[in-house]
Parts: sequence; structure tokens; C-alpha cells
Amino acid sequence: MYSFKNDYSEGAHPSILQKLLETNLVQEPGYGEDRYSQKARALLCEKMNRPDARIYFVAGGTQANLLVIAALLQVHEAVISATTGHIYSHEAGAIEAVGHRIITVDTPNGKLNVDDLRRVLENHRLRPHVVKPRLVYISNSTELGTVYRKEELSQLSVFCRDNGLFLYLDGARLGHALTAPQNDLSLAEIAELTDAFYIGATKNGGLLGEAVVINRPDLAPEFDYVMKQKGALMAKGRLIGIQFLELFKDDLYFRLADHANTMARKLTFALRKKGYDFLTEPETNQIFPLLPRTKVEQLKLKYQFYEWSNIDHQLVALRLITSWATQESVIDQLINDL
Amino acid sequence: MYSFKNDYSEGAHPSILQKLLETNLVQEPGYGEDRYSQKARALLCEKMNRPDARIYFVAGGTQANLLVIAALLQVHEAVISATTGHIYSHEAGAIEAVGHRIITVDTPNGKLNVDDLRRVLENHRLRPHVVKPRLVYISNSTELGTVYRKEELSQLSVFCRDNGLFLYLDGARLGHALTAPQNDLSLAEIAELTDAFYIGATKNGGLLGEAVVINRPDLAPEFDYVMKQKGALMAKGRLIGIQFLELFKDDLYFRLADHANTMARKLTFALRKKGYDFLTEPETNQIFPLLPRTKVEQLKLKYQFYEWSNIDHQLVALRLITSWATQESVIDQLINDL
Amino acid sequence: MYSFKNDYSEGAHPSILQKLLETNLVQEPGYGEDRYSQKARALLCEKMNRPDARIYFVAGGTQANLLVIAALLQVHEAVISATTGHIYSHEAGAIEAVGHRIITVDTPNGKLNVDDLRRVLENHRLRPHVVKPRLVYISNSTELGTVYRKEELSQLSVFCRDNGLFLYLDGARLGHALTAPQNDLSLAEIAELTDAFYIGATKNGGLLGEAVVINRPDLAPEFDYVMKQKGALMAKGRLIGIQFLELFKDDLYFRLADHANTMARKLTFALRKKGYDFLTEPETNQIFPLLPRTKVEQLKLKYQFYEWSNIDHQLVALRLITSWATQESVIDQLINDL
Amino acid sequence: MYSFKNDYSEGAHPSILQKLLETNLVQEPGYGEDRYSQKARALLCEKMNRPDARIYFVAGGTQANLLVIAALLQVHEAVISATTGHIYSHEAGAIEAVGHRIITVDTPNGKLNVDDLRRVLENHRLRPHVVKPRLVYISNSTELGTVYRKEELSQLSVFCRDNGLFLYLDGARLGHALTAPQNDLSLAEIAELTDAFYIGATKNGGLLGEAVVINRPDLAPEFDYVMKQKGALMAKGRLIGIQFLELFKDDLYFRLADHANTMARKLTFALRKKGYDFLTEPETNQIFPLLPRTKVEQLKLKYQFYEWSNIDHQLVALRLITSWATQESVIDQLINDL
Repeated sequence: MYSFKNDYSEGAHPSILQKLLETNLVQEPGYGEDRYSQKARALLCEKMNRPDARIYFVAGGTQANLLVIAALLQVHEAVISATTGHIYSHEAGAIEAVGHRIITVDTPNGKLNVDDLRRVLENHRLRPHVVKPRLVYISNSTELGTVYRKEELSQLSVFCRDNGLFLYLDGARLGHALTAPQNDLSLAEIAELTDAFYIGATKNGGLLGEAVVINRPDLAPEFDYVMKQKGALMAKGRLIGIQFLELFKDDLYFRLADHANTMARKLTFALRKKGYDFLTEPETNQIFPLLPRTKVEQLKLKYQFYEWSNIDHQLVALRLITSWATQESVIDQLINDL
Repeated sequence: MYSFKNDYSEGAHPSILQKLLETNLVQEPGYGEDRYSQKARALLCEKMNRPDARIYFVAGGTQANLLVIAALLQVHEAVISATTGHIYSHEAGAIEAVGHRIITVDTPNGKLNVDDLRRVLENHRLRPHVVKPRLVYISNSTELGTVYRKEELSQLSVFCRDNGLFLYLDGARLGHALTAPQNDLSLAEIAELTDAFYIGATKNGGLLGEAVVINRPDLAPEFDYVMKQKGALMAKGRLIGIQFLELFKDDLYFRLADHANTMARKLTFALRKKGYDFLTEPETNQIFPLLPRTKVEQLKLKYQFYEWSNIDHQLVALRLITSWATQESVIDQLINDL
Repeated sequence: MYSFKNDYSEGAHPSILQKLLETNLVQEPGYGEDRYSQKARALLCEKMNRPDARIYFVAGGTQANLLVIAALLQVHEAVISATTGHIYSHEAGAIEAVGHRIITVDTPNGKLNVDDLRRVLENHRLRPHVVKPRLVYISNSTELGTVYRKEELSQLSVFCRDNGLFLYLDGARLGHALTAPQNDLSLAEIAELTDAFYIGATKNGGLLGEAVVINRPDLAPEFDYVMKQKGALMAKGRLIGIQFLELFKDDLYFRLADHANTMARKLTFALRKKGYDFLTEPETNQIFPLLPRTKVEQLKLKYQFYEWSNIDHQLVALRLITSWATQESVIDQLINDL
Repeated sequence: MYSFKNDYSEGAHPSILQKLLETNLVQEPGYGEDRYSQKARALLCEKMNRPDARIYFVAGGTQANLLVIAALLQVHEAVISATTGHIYSHEAGAIEAVGHRIITVDTPNGKLNVDDLRRVLENHRLRPHVVKPRLVYISNSTELGTVYRKEELSQLSVFCRDNGLFLYLDGARLGHALTAPQNDLSLAEIAELTDAFYIGATKNGGLLGEAVVINRPDLAPEFDYVMKQKGALMAKGRLIGIQFLELFKDDLYFRLADHANTMARKLTFALRKKGYDFLTEPETNQIFPLLPRTKVEQLKLKYQFYEWSNIDHQLVALRLITSWATQESVIDQLINDL
């Protein structure tokens, strides 16, 4: 059985484990003050062309999201997210547990636009009886595999700044977004257009770890306290610092994401050729082909994947995810089995 | 200018103020241990035919809602509510602030049904990545002025008990619901079919005060601690105890609500006669007639009310609320002005 | 049985009830936007000589405390309080429930001083492993009946401003403090030396109600949202507005407090004359005489009061509280019974 | 410079890294459902002789603590801890941030006893004005390096069961406790005498990871939801599962702790021989020798360590921590430098 359920079924890219071995017995200070974390932060700042950005390494995406939102919002402020947004659909109420409502917007493709935001603001004018929308949560790539174009992100950014909203981007799969053929954004532009975001490693070749980036040092100057309080400050911060150093040293991060995308694209091409349609336009390493139920049952004998939704009695939308570790031979095999 | 904006524009029914005067200098223990509160609790238990129910007096509806939900739910559990539910639409994120998500369901008339609940449960199976639906919040009368029939409430009750859900009823306007012509539920049946509910006095002739009823003593045995912690335990609990005693002694509570309903009905009859339609079927003291914009502008010169929503360029849905204090002469005047 | 347990055993000063009767049927907007509340806020601003202060009326002291602290602090910030402080000793964890630690300081008389604060700051330097002390909570009069002198409050104020700490004063019994013979502070000076405080009516002749004062409008510009979220925004805000208007119109507030203090002083004088000592220096309407157990048992036959602590096998510290409603004849009787 | 600041200055025991390498490309389910985590849980249950215990792997100690406390307590319930307890002294308010007070007890040696608990209960009787003490937090070894004897833990256990208190043990350094010469407790007895505890790997040779043990399956049956909500459910749960499997397979865990203890004992012996005294009795891998300031300054040229407290103008209490990775040659060097 081969799994296309997610992009975190394997361990880490071997060069990361190699680096952990090499540095294993060097004594380093704890809590992210080690030299590897410091170098990794400096390297990321350079890649983003933002010397003043504050970077914090945390263990997972839910943690990153709840930390940023807890640090940026006042008690009565709320988040705007697509209904498919990870914070709403897959984080067990993490945001509400730190006190904030998520106002959801239904979208066809997982992306928010300016009209969505405007409508939310219009529906939240009855101060003080309603929550105050204050932070816009987007993900890139989205939970439906789509990516934001520069024009789309710029419009959101301008609207947020004009309306006193924070713009926060969940980059669990930022590598996959930035290496998608449809992408026209750079890492530096992501940093410029948002207030905060995170760069995910767990889903792109790391053992664990996400780099939270606060783009302006005055936004959350005491983020370290919040990390400690929420249990997110790792004693051996070196573990994540080393990984980001390795992933960004020679752009391994982007090469890994590109591989995952390429594998998904090959599969997409084959599926299209066989006449299958998709729930959303395939752009990154998550694709949602619509297959007949009989075909799905047949594939389940050899492959694991999520059945995302039933379109009708006959047709099922699958979610197939490729990763940095997906071998081309497996893709060929799957295409053959289709 | 006469206001139809709400049913809490005036003070309290005069007999309440009279009772406050009479008892004013009697020394009583604080925190709801006074004799008036004790008598009021006993009286309500008798009226509900539930000697074991626990009754707690609090100052307002948002407090009642957040207390019950904070006391009944574990940290990962969520509430199901109509999108129009007061906890979602008008309480500034009070429920999220105590850590719980509200899962909303769009409804035409503000009422939840069993199919709504079933769909929510189906969409929340991906344990532990989703919240766990645990409490169903309904209001009677609803925020759209409609009332639950016995059959509807019974079905919800059975479904909740079969599926491990608490059923909680917001009775800010319970008096208006139970005196509506369409109503076939008694106070005792409300208590029997729900796990907890509250009886509102603020919107039905009290200065302030809601009676939270926990129908089984084992459900929230330490509710008193939660009240104190959330700032809801009044030093001079007598203030609310005296009011409930006065309101329920000779069913004044129901007579006041019936008056409000009757005034709304008279208005409804007149509006229908003039050919106006309604957003939802008028059943209690909140009615939502659809009027042409020109007529609305004309009425605004003499009356205050909420413009609930714009139906189209011409038609506006108003919300008109009558109360225990609404004089029939004002209703006649308004009918005349229509 | 006559109770000296607290100063909220009776209803309200009769002139308040009278005013409620007079204004009862006037229609007013809800949520503190009524004319009485607006006038009361203007009157208090004038009395404090702070035209820019923001004033919010809430139902009780625990509510006032948790609202101010929730509105002013970030998630990782903590409160400094005397161990006897009401928020630590008598509010069922209300402050922790909104997420903040209370760092306690043992004091002989319920008052904090600059050395206390300095020690706390010294013990909280291991950022980010410790909480960040951010708000100093004091009460005046304190829970031990003592009052702050102008020099003491000034020193705290200067230290707080120099060290980035908010200074917040719980004035549940502010009237009693400001009318104590030892007092040399005015209401305007209280406002000048603190960042926020509240003026309590529940314990000084009101039915219920505290006026939260935020001394600078930029400190908590969205306090109204927080009030609504915590269930503290009363529908019939007029109920508290009318009371503060009545209490401050002709300084009734201070006359009532002065009466309570005078009654306590008469009792203190008699107790001293009989050779009894006190736990803390009697200054306001709460006194803590040390009486032999046999005498205590004898008094319990006719009076109610708290036994505050056992000094030794023989001696008990009582807490006796007088109020605006305490009759001099009862004091004379008690003196006689001593 | 050699650091005695903590026991997490190095990476992981080499056999752990080796195992990560070996298993790296095997596909496994996420979120702790992988085979390594399952085996590790089964192995730990066997070692504890508790087939029904529920075991959850999390990334760090603060997370473990806040998860257990959030899952076990109701909103108004509080924790009892020594003032030196990690949750009070070094976790940035993590427990208060999930809503619960920590009631602290000053202790000479970091250990709680039954008298401490009894006093706390006596001081928390004024229901509902106080918090309700509900969970006793202890650590073994304590933050002062001491260990609980079987008799001490048994007494706490009996008292807790008799008084409706949960007993929770923070085992960040449980290995060091159980291998101390003074220890007479087994892992199985720890499990029997407590309601929940955790076994720490971060401070004893792991890269990261703690195993939370809930000793009865009915205590927190939905702990998985809470983990996900607080951001503690790792996508690649295998990372921790593999480590615990490796650490407990051949009792490597206890051998590593024993080594750390042995190194500390050698140092203790040498210090005693030179006439130095200790703040607390040295029992595990954390020792607190009292050294003259001049000697401390001299040592700081070659070694890193915490200056725990100033005893007087001359004497300083240091904290020296040895670890699984401490080389005996470095200890010899330090002894020489003394």
C-alpha cells in the first residue's frame, strides 16, 4: 500500500538527519538561542530581504496559527477565514480556545477576496454587540491546493491596511505555492504584503517545524512570552534551527516543493488525458480529481488517500497529495493503475 | 418619538418597584441566599413541577448563556446554534471568549431542527481534528419572533438525548413564547424537554434579571463557583429574587407577555389588512413587516425601530417590538399613521 | 439578630428608589446610552476634573475588576496584588479565568508599597520563562479597612509610570476611604494618580452598580466590546445611571460613607475604652477588634459578623462592618452588650 | 567553555538518531497513529504494569502540564503546587492562560506534603468566593533536585483520593528520580499512586518529547481533542514514538539518567570534601552547592551555570546540572578547578 494521504508520511530529507548527526554533541543554549537557529533566522531575513523581521521557530502549524492570533488580537477581536481554512476546519477549535471567533466565508477555491472582506465588515457594524473583525487568515497554497496570484494578494493587502485589518498567511505549504507554475509571487513579496506569515517545513521535508515571521518588529514585541506560555518554546530549539538552515542554505526547500508539484502535475496530466475532471484547478501538490466510485474502490486496494466528498451517487472527489519523497516510479504505477 | 426598538425601553412593572420599596430596609444575606430569592426559587420549581431543578438568578442574558455553556462544556466541545442565534449574532463573541466554537446553521425562521443537527454531526467526525458538537442552543421565542411547537421541541430533545448533546433554551422572551396563540408548550414541558434554560425578566417587565434553570441537579453541581468567577453573583441578590417572586406570584409574568403579544397582533392584523407581507410569520411581540422605503421614511419621523434588512431597492424588513408597557393608544396611532 | 457582616444587607438609599419610581415609564435607549447614564458620566467627569475620562457602569466589583484587567493586559501579562486583595481572596479565580496570573504580596495592612513592587519585578526577570508583571491592583479602602495616604499613592504612581506598570484601584469602598479622617486624597487625585479605578455603589447605598473610570481615553478605547462580551453591558443601563446621578448630585455618596465610618468610629472608641486591641488600625467602616472567645460567643446570640481569624486559643479577630443604613441605636446597643 | 546550565545542551543519544535514519523513508500514518508510537505505548504500559493506561506523546513539558490540567479541571478549579514548581516558576503563566489558578505553597525542598494540602483546603472553604483546589502538582525529581520517597508519595496519594483531589506528577526528570540512590519507588508505583504523570525525554537523551500517562482511561477520554486544540498533536508523531521505543527498549532511559546522577554525585563528593555545603540535599543530577563569590567568579571563566540565589554577601548558591552526555573527564577537570 502506498499512501497519498499527505505529505508528512515519511521522516525528513536525509541531509537534515545528516546535519543533526554532525552537530549532535555540540553544546548549545536552549530555547532558540543556539547558533543554528540564529543563523537560520539571519538567512531567512536575507532571503526575504527584511532585516527587521522577527522569526520564531515552532513545532507545528496549529501552534503557529494560535500563537500569532493570540499575540496580535485583543479579547474582542475576531478572525476572517475561508470555511475551508485550516484554523476552522482542522484545528479542533484552537482559535476559539484562545478566545477568538473565526468568521467564515464560503469560497469556491479556498481563497478570500476583497469582496468577501467587505461583506464581513458590513455585517459587523453593530458595535459593541458583534465581534470586531481584525485579522484576515489566508493560506497559500490553500487547503484546496490553489495559489494566490500577486494581484490577488496585493488587493487583499491594500484592503487590510486601509481597513485596520491584519493580514496573516498560513504557509504550511508555502514552498509548494511559490514553486507552482501559476505563481508570480516571491518570498520577499509575501513578506511585504502580509503582516505575519509562517514558512512550513513539516509538510516539505522537515521532521517538524514552522518558521513564524512577524514582518514588523513592533507588531508583537513580546511574542517570546506567548510562545513559552502556550508550550511552544522548545528546549532544544536547535532541532528546528538546524532544519531551516539546511532547507534554505541552497534552496533545498524550493527544490523539494518543486518535486512534489511536478509529481502532482504528471498525475494531473494523466488524469486529464483519461478524461477526468477536478474539484478545483490543480496547481500544487494537492489535487482533487473526480473519479467514479468503482474506480475509487479499485484504487483503494493498492493506495491510500482521502475521499474528500461525494459529488453524486457515482462521482467521488479524491484528495491526492504528493510530497518531496514521492518517487516517480510510484506515480507511473498509479497512472498505469488508472 | 415613540420607540418600537425593543422591549426594555422602560423601567419595571410598578408592582416590582413597590415591592422593592416595601422590603428595602430588611436586612438579608447576600449572594442569592436572601429569603426572597429562596422563595422565588421554590415558587419557580413548583410552577415547573421540578422540585430538583437548580435555579440561579443572574443579571442578563449574555451572562446566562456564557455561564451555562462554560459550566456544561469541556474545553474541546462546541455549541450548535442558528446563525441568527443571539449568542452568535449579538453577544460580541462571549462564547468564544470562554473557549468554545459556535457552529452555525442557516435557517429560514430562526429555529433548528433534527436534520440540521444530523448534518452538523456528520460534518464533525474527523476526530480529533474538529471540535466536538456538544450543546444545542435554541431560543424561544427566537430572534425572528417565532415559537417552537411541542412536536418540534420533542424531536430536538429526543435527538439530543440519543446523541449525547445537551439541549439549552434561551428564554429571554420565554413569556412571549408561552403566551403566543400558536404555542402548545407549558413551562413544565420546557423544563422536561431541555437540560437547561433560562426565564428572562429583563425583556418582560423586570428591571433586570434572568432565572437560569438547570433541570437536573447533577448537571452542573458547582454552578455557583462559575457564577462568582464570571462576575455574575450579585451582592444584593434580593434585587432579582424579589422581582421573580413578584412576577410569578400571580402569573404577572405571563399577563405582561400576553399584553405585548396582543399589541403586536393588533398591529399585525392592521398591516396585513393594508396588504403588507412579513419576513417571518408573526407569532409573538417581535414582528418583521415588509414596507416600502417611502413609507419607512415617513414612519421614522414619529417612531423608532430597527431596519432589519433591505429586501430589494424598494422593500425594507422592519423589526417592530411591543412590550408589557406598550399602550394600546400608541398602537392605534401607529396603525393610523400607516 | 442584627448583622454586621457587610454593608450590602439592605436595599438602597430611599432617594434612589424614589428616582427609579419617578423615571420608570420614560422610554430610554438601552446599553448605557440613556440620558441618566450620560448625565451621570458627565457629572462624575466634572467631580474628578477629568473631562476626557471614560466611564462605564457595571453591575458588580468582580465584573469591574475582570473587565479592566482583560481590557488592559496582553495574554502573557500578570497582576500584582496584596494577598488579601479581593481579586485574589474573594473572586473565585475570575482573573485567572480571563488568563492572567495574580502575583501576591503578603502585607500587614492590605496596602502595597514601592518596595513590594520592586521585589516582584526583580523576581520576574527571566524572560520569557516567567509572566510579565504589568498591572498593580490596589484597593482603597483595603480589604482590611485601611486607607492609602496621598504620599503612599503618589509613590506607587510614580513607580508604576517609571516601570511601565498600570496602576488600578478597586474602589468598592472608595467613599469610605475618601471620608476617613486619615484620608488626604480627593477623588480628582485618585483619578490623576491611577490609570483606572472604579467607584463602588453596591457597598455604599446603591442597589447595585460600580462606575469604572478609565482615566485616559486611549487606554482601552474598545472597552464597550469587552463589557458586552463578558456579559456586563446591561440592557437597562438606566438602572445604574440613575443611581450614580442620585448619589453624586449632592454628594449623597460621601455623606452615606461618612455615616458608616462614623458608626464604626463610635464602636472603635468604645472597644478601645474597654481595652480591646485591633488586628489593623481602624480607619473606615470595616474594623477588626480582637475579642476573647467567650465574649464572641455571647455576642453571636444577638449579632451576625465574620470571625476573621483565630489569633490564639483565646483571642479571635472579628470583622465588623457598618454601613450607610446602620442605625446609631444599634451601635449603642452593641456597645452596651460589650 | 563547558555548560552545566542544563541537561538539554546537546542533541540526542546517538542510538536515537540512528533509529531515525533507519526508519526515515518508511511511510507511516500521522498524529501518533504510526507503528513506532503504538509499540512505544504498549512497551510503556508493560513497564508500568498498567495495560489500561492512556499514553500521549507531546513535544515538551509545559505542553504536557497545560494539557493535563486543561483536560482534568473544570473552569473554577485550581492547582496546588510548591512555589518552586515548574508550572509556577518557569512556564510564563501557561496554567493561568488556560484559566486556572495555581495556589502556591512555600517549601524548603520543593516537595509538598499532606500538611501543606490540608492547610490549602482549610483556606479554601468560603465557597463560592474562592477557587476550588482540585489538582495537586508535584515534580519528581523536584526543581531543587530532591526525590519523593515511597512513603511520602503514598501519603499524598491517600490524602488526594480521600479529598477528591487529582494527583499529577511532572516527570521531566523522572529518570533521574527513579535512579537516585535515595529512591525507593518504581515506575509502576508512580503509575499506581498518581492519577496522571509524564515521563520526560527532552532532559534525558531525547531530541524532544514527553510521554503523558493518564492512569485511568475514564479520566480524560477525549484528551486527543485537547492535544489537537492546544497545538500539541504532532503531524509526524513517529518522531517521538521512535525515541521512546529506543529509550525504553533496553532501559537506556534509566542508564542515561543513572549516568547523569553518578556524575553529579562525584561532583557532590568532591565539593563536600572541600567543605562546601548545599542549599538542598543533593540527590539527583541537579545540585546546589554554596560557594564563595570569589570562587564563583573564577569558575565562570571556564564554565557556564546558573547562579540560583545569593545567600549573603559572600556566599552564592549555584545550580549545576549534569546530563546523559556529561563526560567524566569534564567533571574531573571541574573538581580540579575547584
